[in-house]
Amino acid sequence: MAFDYINALLKKEVSRTPIWVMRQAGRYLPEYRATRKIAGDFLTLCKSSDLACEVTLQPLERFDLDAAILFSDILTIPDAMGLGLHFVEGEGPKFTNPLHTLSSIEHLAKPDVGTELNYVSEAVSVIKKNLKGRVPLIGFTGSPWTLATYMVEGGTSKTFSKVKGLMYENPKHMHQLLDVLADTVIDYLNSQIEAGADSVMIFDTWGGLLSMGSYENFSLRYMSKIVDGIHRSYEGRTIPVTLFTKGGAAWLEQIAATGCDAVGIDWTIELGEAERRVGSKVALQGNLDPSVLYASPDVIKAEAFKVLDQFKGQTGHVFNLGHGITPDVNPESMKVLVDAVHSYPTKTK
Amino acid sequence: MAFDYINALLKKEVSRTPIWVMRQAGRYLPEYRATRKIAGDFLTLCKSSDLACEVTLQPLERFDLDAAILFSDILTIPDAMGLGLHFVEGEGPKFTNPLHTLSSIEHLAKPDVGTELNYVSEAVSVIKKNLKGRVPLIGFTGSPWTLATYMVEGGTSKTFSKVKGLMYENPKHMHQLLDVLADTVIDYLNSQIEAGADSVMIFDTWGGLLSMGSYENFSLRYMSKIVDGIHRSYEGRTIPVTLFTKGGAAWLEQIAATGCDAVGIDWTIELGEAERRVGSKVALQGNLDPSVLYASPDVIKAEAFKVLDQFKGQTGHVFNLGHGITPDVNPESMKVLVDAVHSYPTKTK
Repeated sequence: MAFDYINALLKKEVSRTPIWVMRQAGRYLPEYRATRKIAGDFLTLCKSSDLACEVTLQPLERFDLDAAILFSDILTIPDAMGLGLHFVEGEGPKFTNPLHTLSSIEHLAKPDVGTELNYVSEAVSVIKKNLKGRVPLIGFTGSPWTLATYMVEGGTSKTFSKVKGLMYENPKHMHQLLDVLADTVIDYLNSQIEAGADSVMIFDTWGGLLSMGSYENFSLRYMSKIVDGIHRSYEGRTIPVTLFTKGGAAWLEQIAATGCDAVGIDWTIELGEAERRVGSKVALQGNLDPSVLYASPDVIKAEAFKVLDQFKGQTGHVFNLGHGITPDVNPESMKVLVDAVHSYPTKTK
Repeated sequence: MAFDYINALLKKEVSRTPIWVMRQAGRYLPEYRATRKIAGDFLTLCKSSDLACEVTLQPLERFDLDAAILFSDILTIPDAMGLGLHFVEGEGPKFTNPLHTLSSIEHLAKPDVGTELNYVSEAVSVIKKNLKGRVPLIGFTGSPWTLATYMVEGGTSKTFSKVKGLMYENPKHMHQLLDVLADTVIDYLNSQIEAGADSVMIFDTWGGLLSMGSYENFSLRYMSKIVDGIHRSYEGRTIPVTLFTKGGAAWLEQIAATGCDAVGIDWTIELGEAERRVGSKVALQGNLDPSVLYASPDVIKAEAFKVLDQFKGQTGHVFNLGHGITPDVNPESMKVLVDAVHSYPTKTK
């Protein structure tokens, strides 16, 4: 079956510009909140393949989306490494055993993805089965740098003082940590692909915190290693890979040079400018400001068309928000967006 | 007297690359925390010209800085407009009367800066007197867009849903608000200049949240109005103006085109690249990653030199961090930084 989402990533002909939305299975949906309540705890929701499947499919019931994305968390890898992930209400993710010493980094070992993270590939299998080929399934991971920030800080941070202190002061240990993470991510994404993921995406949420030199050295280098290390095709299917560095608009050329298929961009640059800079090398995913979804239907449609106008319906563009949909958005506004994108006239070759 | 800081902003010859640091008078200094304790409350500290003067001068006693910056808060203007600014421990600034309705925006009036914000120009006068011409004094304001975000949200925000909803849904009201703010900022900066400020800086902390089109329309346009409206020279002194949009690296050309004297940049782009793009039009301020101050003296010096190497000691560069110094930095590290910058060899013409 030919999917517009996959074709757009590979710059092949599409029937219409495909759309999916980051965090499309999430708190803005009342049915998600209900399932989350049944699960009791966020990590239980991730670890139950049936519940993870349920919430993955929820947005597809409501909206004419062109892809599903595995419901999981980027911090499953550090959890499998023994850091003890848990969630504190209103404070986000926390680790019981953060990497607060150099020796804890030295002793960190790559987990066996096939056993420790088996629940993730199991969820992929269950979702694939239940999708019945309706739309493709996106697998994902956090970037090594992004995972490392949480592991060293012990949770979210405002200043990122610990991880940046480590980076500036002990670059050797920082690289050691990132290396283990990159190797683990390769196994992790490959296990998702083997279980049925049709494309994969790397979320580099905190790469934009870095200076250009540090970004290349501590974040991009390891994403590049992953791009080289994962299955780019599997059982006859080409598996496109998308890199998304939030706040990385300045480094598009460098990101595109990794050999990835697509680059996700946030809303701080015009999609047309991104296309002029790297459109000959990669497809682009993005980039509507998520806050547009707080506006009325007419405004949502007009703003979505402004984004679409920059590609004029040609392939190589996967419509998305520039960041995740926020929990207080009305699901009706999401429907307006998806339908608006699909009403846009497509230019076929 | 010729000041290196002023000369660098005007691209005149300097004896050395000048340095000051955003939030140089702040919580990382034990003597600041002591004065803050005496004041009891942050706003009391801002409103007492003697205490504001005391904390303004504190970092100059410790470090060989090339400029002092008025101790105040960017939210004095909305407070003077009747929004009732107060600070909640651990939650940051809050307004008792935020702009939650369109009618509250319609009824917003420009305050009389000469009476309502008299305490700020009084602080400037007292500081100037106590500085005794040692270094120049920087006056400052928040940008209209940045002030508006706090006024509409009622405080800090993660999603900025209210202010962005307003912007997308009721652009007319948004512009009305920004217009009143820009007119007030012009009066406010002029009152600081008349009281003795030697240069002024506009902090656009939240401009980087916007898409390019929205940035030009809702943030930059009003900063440009301010650049045109304030005293660019006063009583024979040229008053340089610096614009700083955090996260605005993509828009340097547009910022430089306002006619400002200098552009502040964060650490996400290389200073040398910024210089190639807009160095013929403006001076540049920045751009060391504040987290470098968590590293050891050798690393701090090496990283500072990496920034300095991009200008090679030529004029047109004011050294600064790319954002404010963080509260948990050791003051000794700040000393290492200031001395490192001053040890860098200067190229004279």
